[in-house]
Amino acid sequence: METMEKKLPFACDYMQGGHPKVMETLMETNHLSTDGYGLDPFCEDAKKRILNACDCNGGDVAFFLGGTQANATMIHALLSSYQGVVCADTGHINVHEAGAVEFGGNKVLPLPHENGKLMPHTLADYLDRFFSDETYQHMVIPGMVYLTQPTELGTLYSLDELKQIRSICDTYHLPLYVDGARLAYALASPENTISLKDLAKYTDVFYIGGTKCGALFGEAVVLPNPKKIPYLFTIIKQHGALLAKGRLLGLQFKELFTDKLYYKCGETAIKSAIRIQDTLKELGYPLYQESATNQLFFVMEDAALLEFGNLVNYGFWEKIDAQHTVIRLVTSWYTKEEDVDKLIELLKTYKRSNECHRI
Amino acid sequence: METMEKKLPFACDYMQGGHPKVMETLMETNHLSTDGYGLDPFCEDAKKRILNACDCNGGDVAFFLGGTQANATMIHALLSSYQGVVCADTGHINVHEAGAVEFGGNKVLPLPHENGKLMPHTLADYLDRFFSDETYQHMVIPGMVYLTQPTELGTLYSLDELKQIRSICDTYHLPLYVDGARLAYALASPENTISLKDLAKYTDVFYIGGTKCGALFGEAVVLPNPKKIPYLFTIIKQHGALLAKGRLLGLQFKELFTDKLYYKCGETAIKSAIRIQDTLKELGYPLYQESATNQLFFVMEDAALLEFGNLVNYGFWEKIDAQHTVIRLVTSWYTKEEDVDKLIELLKTYKRSNECHRI
Amino acid sequence: METMEKKLPFACDYMQGGHPKVMETLMETNHLSTDGYGLDPFCEDAKKRILNACDCNGGDVAFFLGGTQANATMIHALLSSYQGVVCADTGHINVHEAGAVEFGGNKVLPLPHENGKLMPHTLADYLDRFFSDETYQHMVIPGMVYLTQPTELGTLYSLDELKQIRSICDTYHLPLYVDGARLAYALASPENTISLKDLAKYTDVFYIGGTKCGALFGEAVVLPNPKKIPYLFTIIKQHGALLAKGRLLGLQFKELFTDKLYYKCGETAIKSAIRIQDTLKELGYPLYQESATNQLFFVMEDAALLEFGNLVNYGFWEKIDAQHTVIRLVTSWYTKEEDVDKLIELLKTYKRSNECHRI
Amino acid sequence: METMEKKLPFACDYMQGGHPKVMETLMETNHLSTDGYGLDPFCEDAKKRILNACDCNGGDVAFFLGGTQANATMIHALLSSYQGVVCADTGHINVHEAGAVEFGGNKVLPLPHENGKLMPHTLADYLDRFFSDETYQHMVIPGMVYLTQPTELGTLYSLDELKQIRSICDTYHLPLYVDGARLAYALASPENTISLKDLAKYTDVFYIGGTKCGALFGEAVVLPNPKKIPYLFTIIKQHGALLAKGRLLGLQFKELFTDKLYYKCGETAIKSAIRIQDTLKELGYPLYQESATNQLFFVMEDAALLEFGNLVNYGFWEKIDAQHTVIRLVTSWYTKEEDVDKLIELLKTYKRSNECHRI
Repeated sequence: METMEKKLPFACDYMQGGHPKVMETLMETNHLSTDGYGLDPFCEDAKKRILNACDCNGGDVAFFLGGTQANATMIHALLSSYQGVVCADTGHINVHEAGAVEFGGNKVLPLPHENGKLMPHTLADYLDRFFSDETYQHMVIPGMVYLTQPTELGTLYSLDELKQIRSICDTYHLPLYVDGARLAYALASPENTISLKDLAKYTDVFYIGGTKCGALFGEAVVLPNPKKIPYLFTIIKQHGALLAKGRLLGLQFKELFTDKLYYKCGETAIKSAIRIQDTLKELGYPLYQESATNQLFFVMEDAALLEFGNLVNYGFWEKIDAQHTVIRLVTSWYTKEEDVDKLIELLKTYKRSNECHRI
Repeated sequence: METMEKKLPFACDYMQGGHPKVMETLMETNHLSTDGYGLDPFCEDAKKRILNACDCNGGDVAFFLGGTQANATMIHALLSSYQGVVCADTGHINVHEAGAVEFGGNKVLPLPHENGKLMPHTLADYLDRFFSDETYQHMVIPGMVYLTQPTELGTLYSLDELKQIRSICDTYHLPLYVDGARLAYALASPENTISLKDLAKYTDVFYIGGTKCGALFGEAVVLPNPKKIPYLFTIIKQHGALLAKGRLLGLQFKELFTDKLYYKCGETAIKSAIRIQDTLKELGYPLYQESATNQLFFVMEDAALLEFGNLVNYGFWEKIDAQHTVIRLVTSWYTKEEDVDKLIELLKTYKRSNECHRI
Repeated sequence: METMEKKLPFACDYMQGGHPKVMETLMETNHLSTDGYGLDPFCEDAKKRILNACDCNGGDVAFFLGGTQANATMIHALLSSYQGVVCADTGHINVHEAGAVEFGGNKVLPLPHENGKLMPHTLADYLDRFFSDETYQHMVIPGMVYLTQPTELGTLYSLDELKQIRSICDTYHLPLYVDGARLAYALASPENTISLKDLAKYTDVFYIGGTKCGALFGEAVVLPNPKKIPYLFTIIKQHGALLAKGRLLGLQFKELFTDKLYYKCGETAIKSAIRIQDTLKELGYPLYQESATNQLFFVMEDAALLEFGNLVNYGFWEKIDAQHTVIRLVTSWYTKEEDVDKLIELLKTYKRSNECHRI
Repeated sequence: METMEKKLPFACDYMQGGHPKVMETLMETNHLSTDGYGLDPFCEDAKKRILNACDCNGGDVAFFLGGTQANATMIHALLSSYQGVVCADTGHINVHEAGAVEFGGNKVLPLPHENGKLMPHTLADYLDRFFSDETYQHMVIPGMVYLTQPTELGTLYSLDELKQIRSICDTYHLPLYVDGARLAYALASPENTISLKDLAKYTDVFYIGGTKCGALFGEAVVLPNPKKIPYLFTIIKQHGALLAKGRLLGLQFKELFTDKLYYKCGETAIKSAIRIQDTLKELGYPLYQESATNQLFFVMEDAALLEFGNLVNYGFWEKIDAQHTVIRLVTSWYTKEEDVDKLIELLKTYKRSNECHRI
């Protein structure tokens, strides 16, 4: 199986297992006997640590196995059947979750994004128009707002934007939900202005992504006001999302929220991402989207890409013209400095190669 | 956290982590980089091993994270909206899955069980009556049959019963699905007559339970005729059931199907279960249900149970009269011989104690 | 098409069109132009009349096109996804609505009936046991109670039973819903003790059946506390249940609630039903179920039934043994006295004939 | 209630009852006794007439009560859970059906319209891109195509466009569905090139709208290959869409397809619509959308509209700038020539008035 490792691993942030600390804890506790379904002391411990980090003592935490599962379950828990979830048209729930929201009966209501973000003015305009339409009761009623931090394009909402969106949501009595599949990489970004405490203060539900941020698997959904969602345990079970050995999730998040491991996972990735993006700019690779976090989007010539792709695991994003392609490189908690060094060398090589081809 | 271990662990078969071999493999491969979503060489390897064990070379395998998730996803994949799934009224999908089948739009059609089993004559009678009712098109149409092997009461279908049910299903063109959450414990039972090969031959879909049978988590759904379910990948994603790091499931099942580990996990549990059930009979504890596998159901006097429960983690089943309770003890791949020794001593103690109380 | 009328029409209460008064109103108003979707003066008028009849001035009324549609829409409006609807196992929603409740994601939770009724003690026992089960959060949570008045077997709840069920519902915070598809026939029964006012007082939602009780089509759902169900208009639209020319429903119910026409429709049917059931008893036909309303269930010998069926349109209920069948005769607002006379003669003939055959 | 008639009725095509011929038949047959649920001779007769008109003898017809109901039921019948329905973003199912499609679990996949139409090149481009995306199995799979004829903007697909779309559908094995809520008005348009026979030949399912085209209520869904949708009766029942007195639908469509009444209903409306649209052009009212059928969209100055609206029932479409509004006028089978005369006078008046205001 050694072939798997030959290429530099920049295709995504879920290509390896879990952070060594997380794995160590799983091994050490493996023989212990505990109650199932999350009713164990490790989950209790993890919840306390997370709520402390969020400064949210009256809150609760629910653990999930993956992002689509967390999103679908919580969106169905928040909406009535006649309501839809408003999001940017690039939103993960609108594109890459195979209709999980619709499967449960709710419509996704996409609005045009700006740099991957649902901008406050776009949201406000839509809601104003919607509720002033005489026939709005014939349409799906907007019932909540979904954001991603960082976004699917690696960008970040600012604290000011978050507050504005919260205020619009308050006007229309809409819960605000933030998908934090890659939240560690937002928290570690020098451009970030939104802390865990802000998320707990300004959202109704948000989740702290583990799968892509150091955990073996798992996401921690934070509920600042858990009373708003009665019978969440049953809703989770109904979604097939209740892990029998629930402690496996508790154990991992306990570790991620010990000695700020979650933040450290983010920092490793961001340090590398900044190096790579700076190199891209210096070399003159056109950026598809300036990124503030661990996903980097840029244009490469197809001839160069063909060779580059033999040496680097990257993500295809889209064909931009007959001879160029947008690709995505992703760093993570796992990214090694020496791999970044090699990658930068390759970027230099294939940029030169690019120019040759053009002549 | 040592308090967790004070009691003898017989409450369930998902109270510990994974088999040491499974954990070892997860650790050893943790740093490797592979593609996500099950498109990795470990999943390929595991599939081959499972299909070999099932003598089912044209088949395919899909991995899930838990039983409710596997059941709901596959039942939704097999049924049209107007169809329901026929099962014993004790069936897990009818009782303890929080309406996961109904959430996707399908009705569960329960029939009276005998010893936890849906008997061939019960099924045949129901289907005969159903399709001869003039108004049957006003009702939910039976669209598949769901069995559990071993059943929720620890009993086993015989190969002859399985063949009869298959034949009834053929008459009515119904797919047959077998939930094998505890399949290792059926395979290891001296009373068992149904092999993996039989399941692959006589069912349309069945699953090999990992969570309760040695895996850290995970279930392997076997599809003898994968073409019957197009776009299963998308259906899995839509159910929030697609694991980003899919290899974690492949790795575990690869290990469970190496050196017959899956069978060995079953044998450990069954050896202990037989010792315990024999003791129960010798001591005169009334059995609620004679079991052929790793779940044991019997009656205990409440006064005795109060003390017994301080020393043994057991499962409450039901109050049977004012002074007696049915409890469940469960063995597993993890069960230690010395714990069984201690349990047997306690059963003796509290049976004596029982008698004293009665006088 | 005169062949259609050769047999005496006792098969069901929806075999003809609407009451002449209803038809007259539809014709007279046909050329008028009004707003659509129920926002017309006829619907307003009908609502007022119905709410007056129910002594329920703060309430509201929503019109539907049929019973399954009304049931499914209102049940989905009342339940969250993790909840189910409790009913007698004979309940229409459990048997003859093709899984309309499950299609929207909710489980039907059937309990054993007594004479077609969900008895207060059965309901109380179930709820007590349910919520004292340690694992109840793994199951579908009972979220409302569904009754039918009169029941599918023609029987009636007493006011005392209704009050008891209300009280149980209050204990568990469950809304109570009554399906009144044949409510006119309950209201006209000499055995009835539950008025429209009682229904408005003791239920959360109930419907006044039109289709089977004099209307051309349509059911009127009464909501004593409409604020409990926000956006019902949208929910109705989402169920495909919003009639463009909504006034057609308003017009009919306006007429049915003018000069007590709805009650008169019931009386016609009940007078005939009593004559027929008395005859059945006198002649010694075994009753399958003593009826208080317009559906009569009794046993006939198959040989006699073969001839009887050439002259009378009846409903097959079930084969009770090799030589006998339970059949249903139904009277309605349309039933003619001379048809009852002829039916009674035939019952005499085929009872005699029966006896001949037996010798 | 005479106030209802004071304004000229051009707001919509469902403001009156049914065509006198339809009403007459309902009255004449009211006292007859027939079987329920569409199993009556009138439905049989109507089906034959419709299939004859479509030159589609192996086909079948299913009757519904309204358009949203017909669309949702048939779309759910055609799609599997992981599939979505492709339509123009203006499509009725995407906007004005309150999420009825999503309620049953399927996503609506909207594409940009041109003049209210989903153009063949837009569809082909989307499908080509979709299936060449490496990650398409993570997305909702396009499972059918939905068109409206005439469109929500009054425009028409040409026969050539229909054939092109059919060919694209064939390439991707997608069923093609046409919503004909206002089909009579397409059939009567001088610009129309698609006949009922073409619809039966080039679509998999389409419906012939009754509610807006002369019926009291009802839509006739035509299935050229009924075997493709087994158990449609049950699916209809499950959607609460099965009318107990099904003959009411059969009777109406029998009448509409006798002596070409359906076509005549269309002609009345189109003659008037052409007169009105010609007037609008002559007078220089800016058209929002040139219409080929019975819906006319144009711009009016707000000051003029205020007075015009006291005399004419019109439909608000959208505010186009601070002083102007797009409105919709709709003609129908009911439209009286004298009302058109009056309307034309008013259009002249308020155009002059417009100009005065502008000075």
